[in-house]
Amino acid sequence: METITEYEVGNSVEGPQTGADRSLADIPGILFVDHVAIAVRQGELDGQVKAYETLGFREIHREEVLGLDQVREALLQIGDGPNLIQLLEPLNASSPVQKTIDKNGGRGGLAHIAFRVKNARHAFDAMRKTGFKLIDPAPRKGSRGTTVFFVHPKSKEESPFGVLIEIVEDPESK
Amino acid sequence: METITEYEVGNSVEGPQTGADRSLADIPGILFVDHVAIAVRQGELDGQVKAYETLGFREIHREEVLGLDQVREALLQIGDGPNLIQLLEPLNASSPVQKTIDKNGGRGGLAHIAFRVKNARHAFDAMRKTGFKLIDPAPRKGSRGTTVFFVHPKSKEESPFGVLIEIVEDPESK
Repeated sequence: METITEYEVGNSVEGPQTGADRSLADIPGILFVDHVAIAVRQGELDGQVKAYETLGFREIHREEVLGLDQVREALLQIGDGPNLIQLLEPLNASSPVQKTIDKNGGRGGLAHIAFRVKNARHAFDAMRKTGFKLIDPAPRKGSRGTTVFFVHPKSKEESPFGVLIEIVEDPESK
Repeated sequence: METITEYEVGNSVEGPQTGADRSLADIPGILFVDHVAIAVRQGELDGQVKAYETLGFREIHREEVLGLDQVREALLQIGDGPNLIQLLEPLNASSPVQKTIDKNGGRGGLAHIAFRVKNARHAFDAMRKTGFKLIDPAPRKGSRGTTVFFVHPKSKEESPFGVLIEIVEDPESK
């Protein structure tokens, strides 16, 4: 519980530039960009990893993620920084990543942006309360031991994001 | 000159997982994700800013960038972290951001990923030397006093990136 004390209900903070007071319970607690996910076509993962290695990235993790995701994932880190590049290669046609590639005219490309939070459950509740449309019915297991959920790109009716957002809690960094 | 001493030619570092020795002169010196750029349709910038404010972001900069870019840009920060969201609204049909929206079926969406470096000139030379196709003929002025250049999404013939990458040097952070 000590990791979420700053989210206690009832406190309020200075709103952003809207000037509105908002409860900390309404704020998901985003810390930084956990990773930017990039779809790559089947058979192209190793070549893409090499191209990022030319830029100075190194592969720190590889995993086949089954379930809803159906992808081969390579995580690339630069220096010892917190921001990762996540290359996603679909394992089969039912992978959502294959659908991203199909929608992109058969090319790979930027798939989603993931933000790190301390507590995925808190973030989930805060975003549901403030009207975001969440794809997952609850935070669920992600790769490398994380807890994650996805936010619908057409979230927020009055101003559709147009961007697939993932929220990530990483127990390793607590 | 003191900011680039670690890039002196002739030193070599352990290669990533390829095991190949590489000169530091060949490595662009990427530090972290400077920003993730998101295209928004004309007239939708303020609504998008509000949606990100709901997530806890705050607007720290707004600028009309003319020249090649032709965009209205809003920069959003979360906490005091280094990773920014850059919302880009095209000023007119000749803006490359409008072309991104057109290619995306008239919707906004992820436009590019920008990496921060200490020295854009060094990064430019390193990436040209290692075979990346660079869109700008030289590092040029970006928004908020930065020096930037763009890397072509079809860079690296043997493994096309598929992603538009920007390299950013920010004199404010030196």
